[in-house]
Amino acid sequence: MSEIRYAERLKNMQGNVIREILKLTQQPDIISFAGGLPSPDSFPVLVLAEIAREVILDKRDILQYGTTEGYLPLREFIAGWVKGIGIEATTEEVVITSGSQQGIDLIAKAMIDKGDTAVVESPTYLAAIQILKTYQANFAVAHGDHEGVSVDELEATIARENPKIAYLVPTFQNPTGITLSLERRKAVGALLAHHNTVLVEDDPYGRLSFTDEVLPAIKAYDSSQRVVYLGSFSKLVSPGLRLGFAVGEPSLLRKMVIGKQGADVHTNNLAQAMVYEFCRRGHLEPHIQSIRTQYGHKLKVMQDCLKDLPADIKWTSPTGGLFIWGELPQGMDAGQLLVAAIKEKVAFIPGESFYVEGGHKHTMRLNFSNATPDNIREGMRRLKVALQNYR
Amino acid sequence: MSEIRYAERLKNMQGNVIREILKLTQQPDIISFAGGLPSPDSFPVLVLAEIAREVILDKRDILQYGTTEGYLPLREFIAGWVKGIGIEATTEEVVITSGSQQGIDLIAKAMIDKGDTAVVESPTYLAAIQILKTYQANFAVAHGDHEGVSVDELEATIARENPKIAYLVPTFQNPTGITLSLERRKAVGALLAHHNTVLVEDDPYGRLSFTDEVLPAIKAYDSSQRVVYLGSFSKLVSPGLRLGFAVGEPSLLRKMVIGKQGADVHTNNLAQAMVYEFCRRGHLEPHIQSIRTQYGHKLKVMQDCLKDLPADIKWTSPTGGLFIWGELPQGMDAGQLLVAAIKEKVAFIPGESFYVEGGHKHTMRLNFSNATPDNIREGMRRLKVALQNYR
Repeated sequence: MSEIRYAERLKNMQGNVIREILKLTQQPDIISFAGGLPSPDSFPVLVLAEIAREVILDKRDILQYGTTEGYLPLREFIAGWVKGIGIEATTEEVVITSGSQQGIDLIAKAMIDKGDTAVVESPTYLAAIQILKTYQANFAVAHGDHEGVSVDELEATIARENPKIAYLVPTFQNPTGITLSLERRKAVGALLAHHNTVLVEDDPYGRLSFTDEVLPAIKAYDSSQRVVYLGSFSKLVSPGLRLGFAVGEPSLLRKMVIGKQGADVHTNNLAQAMVYEFCRRGHLEPHIQSIRTQYGHKLKVMQDCLKDLPADIKWTSPTGGLFIWGELPQGMDAGQLLVAAIKEKVAFIPGESFYVEGGHKHTMRLNFSNATPDNIREGMRRLKVALQNYR
Repeated sequence: MSEIRYAERLKNMQGNVIREILKLTQQPDIISFAGGLPSPDSFPVLVLAEIAREVILDKRDILQYGTTEGYLPLREFIAGWVKGIGIEATTEEVVITSGSQQGIDLIAKAMIDKGDTAVVESPTYLAAIQILKTYQANFAVAHGDHEGVSVDELEATIARENPKIAYLVPTFQNPTGITLSLERRKAVGALLAHHNTVLVEDDPYGRLSFTDEVLPAIKAYDSSQRVVYLGSFSKLVSPGLRLGFAVGEPSLLRKMVIGKQGADVHTNNLAQAMVYEFCRRGHLEPHIQSIRTQYGHKLKVMQDCLKDLPADIKWTSPTGGLFIWGELPQGMDAGQLLVAAIKEKVAFIPGESFYVEGGHKHTMRLNFSNATPDNIREGMRRLKVALQNYR
């Protein structure tokens, strides 16, 4: 099975680096910028505890089997909520998923047969690569700049490769933190009308903007109904509840629902009812606002620390999300830097595994959402020492 | 993609019968014996509501991302709990799944490439057929009798077809309600040592015995470590929480975990912590006892009603679980009977779709767990009328 072979390859290729990192992030004396975890301080513990109790008592039906499409009141809420980023959708165009990552898996399951092509950004989200390899996809890549993926290159690649799907994280991208500009969003929406490719718009971070600017989704410009928009409550409420959603054209959603019937029948009803109640009672927007403030401050703390690092490292300048992306001078190896960093009790993630084409050993990703501001300062001090020891 | 083609084929083959049934079970004036739903009366609402509140307040880590293998205290509990059916397992040999059906999906994802063979019982669980078709498996079948699958036929089929997996529901089988005898369990466990086939032992109903007899699992006789045992809390606590588990040899579980990483990262932590607390506080065994009493009574009510139906219908005699299986006289069509039954406001499920080889139009499945005893009596009266109208 290809996923196993892929996992073996990944393991060999990266010398267990990622596995080791994940282990290290569990050690309390390591300050980790490696994962993509929300801040535990951000979880609305008291509100969720009360809501959990109340929805079980008031809506005991949630303990029974539910429908694969999801809890109807939550689907209705989401259909209204996404209007805020320009998406017009009916309830029938919304399906609940067990985390937005399941959305990637279900689209791949529905669309990709062995040897079909998927276009992804270079670099792109590691787990999306892994899922697409599970379904034995071939890859083509499109590069970008500080305004996100190049529309010309994306369209040329689609025209040349005739891919089944294209996968983008247009807002506060994982791993780079870069956001696709408004003009390019419009252009990507328009170009889809001329090709037989489904665009997967993965948007787990879009609401975490630290400025007042909230860009419309690419799906807002999807005149040909070829975009499946994936959203998530993992970064807004709680990842442990595993709750995401897909918005798209009904016949494509239907294929995803058939895959989901086999995969897990439906998403945990309690989580669906809890998040719906959280939203219905008006907690969502104030809570997002508080996370934006908190993460915006953490980003600024980390960016201030970056100024103390050697000037020949190039960093992206995100305005939201969870990640900053760094390019060390060519010839440096982020994997070796990580070894030095771990000696200083700080961790990050080397960038190589975010590239389907490999290479790019001089790149690295820093997460700023999980650590406290004090730990960010201390962790960055340690990273500076690691850089001195490496050089 | 094969699953879509399969779904289309299923739809065409069965003239939307199953889709229509599922719709009908939602209508309040229909008494449905069609689904496989637990009784809503059986849900421990008050206890779960309190536990949900407490685990969120006391263990706020469950709101963060968790490990793909599952919540460690629950895995430890399960490793001890399955000793009751003769399974010796370490915590590392237990993985939590988002319902036991996800276990089937993950094994198929790890083991089946297009054209690989899976051996199933004839008849077998409908969703297992659907999942295996998603992964483009070929099928071979093994038949059985009132003691479950024929071991000789199973072994001959395995020897001839060299399947990657064999799938059995040995206890209170879905759809027949039949239980594999102790002797045959031992024999199936032994024969696996001579073949390169993984046995999937799907056991969502095993604890729902209405007698004092609890048989050891096939996995209790798995000297060659080729059985993956799948368990579920859906019928014991709540299906809406989507919580199951797999017990098996670590290298095979590892493959399932890699598939699960892509599929949903991990199972909802709140559900895992809630069910663990439910078990730790000693609620599980008394609760199972109360369900056994309740469902045992319902089975007896339904069996009493069966005596009023024409004697030329053959019914299985389950001693646990959720289902009775019926064989109408050859030449009768359960699909047509269903049409007559729906006019009388009662529903069941025709048996044809439980056969990978099709046919068997004279078979049908009755569920006795979901309706109240009074509704079982009324529903069976309606079914008797439908049979009179059909003939």
